[in-house]
Amino acid sequence: MKLETQWIVGFVDGEGCFHVGISRHEDMRLGVQVLPEFTVVQHERDVNILYALKRHFGCGVVRRNNGDRMAWRVRDRQQLLERIVPFFMKHSLKTKKKVDFLKFRKVLLLMEKGEHLTPEGLEKIQAIAASMNRYRASGD
Amino acid sequence: MKLETQWIVGFVDGEGCFHVGISRHEDMRLGVQVLPEFTVVQHERDVNILYALKRHFGCGVVRRNNGDRMAWRVRDRQQLLERIVPFFMKHSLKTKKKVDFLKFRKVLLLMEKGEHLTPEGLEKIQAIAASMNRYRASGD
Repeated sequence: MKLETQWIVGFVDGEGCFHVGISRHEDMRLGVQVLPEFTVVQHERDVNILYALKRHFGCGVVRRNNGDRMAWRVRDRQQLLERIVPFFMKHSLKTKKKVDFLKFRKVLLLMEKGEHLTPEGLEKIQAIAASMNRYRASGD
Repeated sequence: MKLETQWIVGFVDGEGCFHVGISRHEDMRLGVQVLPEFTVVQHERDVNILYALKRHFGCGVVRRNNGDRMAWRVRDRQQLLERIVPFFMKHSLKTKKKVDFLKFRKVLLLMEKGEHLTPEGLEKIQAIAASMNRYRASGD
């Protein structure tokens, strides 16, 4: 299946999620792990779409999300920076999801500078992460 | 806001819903009303997208759906047949939502022939309607 550029933008405007997870992790220097991830979730009947996205971007994994839901998920920071971010910088999202994308990018760039390894940088990243995806609770 | 054709297809693959409502209605000849509708629901923060879709297709209304959700909804049968159906016949959906779209179209064409006004036709339409949107219950 060939995916047109604007089809991908429209589909991600609907179904994509840019998320920055922050979790306790004793092995990490500051006891906290920052985990940016980009996901698209679909009912398993449309898993072929997720594989087509994976092929198109050449990164990520397709896994069961929960129940009858599958997810295409990109967590590798270099692949996020080199494949996902440039695509959506060039082909702008139209919904307010663009705001989350820009925050997501900002976190990745801070991490590139190693700021997640300093208390000040980590605080900055936690504040950005807390301000993202605030409209999902009500039913997205 | 200008909406590219393929962006619309991708967005509707994610967020659109082709639905055939069947409700009791004493005024109708067979006591039942068939109500095909096409909707796109978004959080109110993205209501401008719904207005852009309404402008693009030149039909439908934008209304509150429930809570903080807004919907662009097309119910007029002629506008569905003349504006919505031809668009998605020309620009094919990529997800299995296409199956629902084709059933939706079939119902509209049956209604054009007045079949919803005969007991046999109505039964046919009810069977099609019952087979649609079967993957929504689990979280779409």
